[in-house]
Amino acid sequence: MIRRLAIVGLGLLGGSVAKVARAESLAREIVGIGRNPASLTPALSGGAVDRVTTNLREGVAGADMIVLATPVATLERQMPAVWEAALPQALITDVGSTKAAIVRVAETLGAGKPLDFVGSHPMAGSNLSGFGVARADLFRGATIILTPTDRTAPDAVKRVTEFWEAAGGRVVTMEPATHDRAVAAISHLPHLVADALVDAVARMDPQFFDVAARGFKDTTRIAASSPTVWREIFEENREALGEAIGVFRAALDDLERVLRSGDAPRIEAELERIRVIRDGLG
Amino acid sequence: MIRRLAIVGLGLLGGSVAKVARAESLAREIVGIGRNPASLTPALSGGAVDRVTTNLREGVAGADMIVLATPVATLERQMPAVWEAALPQALITDVGSTKAAIVRVAETLGAGKPLDFVGSHPMAGSNLSGFGVARADLFRGATIILTPTDRTAPDAVKRVTEFWEAAGGRVVTMEPATHDRAVAAISHLPHLVADALVDAVARMDPQFFDVAARGFKDTTRIAASSPTVWREIFEENREALGEAIGVFRAALDDLERVLRSGDAPRIEAELERIRVIRDGLG
Repeated sequence: MIRRLAIVGLGLLGGSVAKVARAESLAREIVGIGRNPASLTPALSGGAVDRVTTNLREGVAGADMIVLATPVATLERQMPAVWEAALPQALITDVGSTKAAIVRVAETLGAGKPLDFVGSHPMAGSNLSGFGVARADLFRGATIILTPTDRTAPDAVKRVTEFWEAAGGRVVTMEPATHDRAVAAISHLPHLVADALVDAVARMDPQFFDVAARGFKDTTRIAASSPTVWREIFEENREALGEAIGVFRAALDDLERVLRSGDAPRIEAELERIRVIRDGLG
Repeated sequence: MIRRLAIVGLGLLGGSVAKVARAESLAREIVGIGRNPASLTPALSGGAVDRVTTNLREGVAGADMIVLATPVATLERQMPAVWEAALPQALITDVGSTKAAIVRVAETLGAGKPLDFVGSHPMAGSNLSGFGVARADLFRGATIILTPTDRTAPDAVKRVTEFWEAAGGRVVTMEPATHDRAVAAISHLPHLVADALVDAVARMDPQFFDVAARGFKDTTRIAASSPTVWREIFEENREALGEAIGVFRAALDDLERVLRSGDAPRIEAELERIRVIRDGLG
């Protein structure tokens, strides 16, 4: 049982952490920290948090668990103040969708003031954002990637794992750099590709959208996400995303070459190879 | 009211035409034509059709409406026999997902034996195939693209429109060539891109699939479709698909260039421009 849980940022993810922590009685007291009254007010009046503040240091002081849930660039700027204000025994995690840079900042700060930090990335989200769409079941069945390093205390990993499992998630662990390559491949690249697909159709003829079926809408739904959030994610994960784009381009070129060959058995074998892989994902 | 409806091919689309025609009493008698007993037997025993045959000419003879629902390449090979065996007053349509080549064959055959033909493409489907997944409500709310030309009798367009509307569809019309460019953009290109995405992740590290969230699964679901069906579609629509791939590649290159610029307002403006377009699709 957490005595005081401080959540920095009450958007979709931070708000959902507050709601599930309340619903599952994971913390005795929940403090919400944010700058936007549009998130703080409903979080407080709806009972998701017990107290709100716009003062970061005041909000995290005295908390035994702190969840950092602001957009990645903001989060990195806030970390020094969090480290200064936090209790020595505080357990800190985050929900940032890139991990190498955040873990690096945490370990640099930890060299001055050792605090238990474990990077988390809940693979849950929406193309919508803000406290208004936060919900207690957001993490149910979701994969939560933790990125401990050899400097992370095993007990901290255990406690963060228990927290996310209590929230309904399925926890896996990865090296921070491996995490960033993985999400570049399965999240950031598909997003960029969806953007390019929408733009390609618009360039060919915007009237073509009129006949788009469910498949096109499913494929491109992520292109309707917040530009600010995604600009930061793309920038944070620039290097791994660049690699993923390169591999994707090569895969597309190869596939086009196979199609152009006109060799029916070879084309079907290639489509079948990919179908089997995709089918395995459910 | 159709006296005798002949459906050539009882897969997902042909089977669904049979089921909705039965459910909505669109035809007095329904004849199913196919080569695969695995489709014909359940169609007959389940009451979706009144009679089945593996003989194409025998099956279409005497029908006042004929729906061609075999894969596109098969369909084109079958059309001469259909034209020979059909009644002079028969109304013919198809469900092929490319239209220029099929309409061309129909008009060539029509020069010898004038029959009412209107190309149809129901924008409904699934990554699954076969009669087993056919359902009476497949076309409900779906866009059905008709591709009449200046040689098509207005009354034939009217009757085919009424047929699809009775099946629950929303009918729009397009030039055959425009149709093919439209579906290259909003259906065939996204499929190819989904294939390339799956392949790119497999090339980077197949373990990355373990952390794929719903977004990745949605984006790539179409990559789990039948390789035979899609090899034919890609080949049939080779030219328009080639154009679409080129436009997509340019859109992706431009997007990557904007990201690499590091110019935050410019990146967000570009993501926002695309978000607004995608958001408009629902």
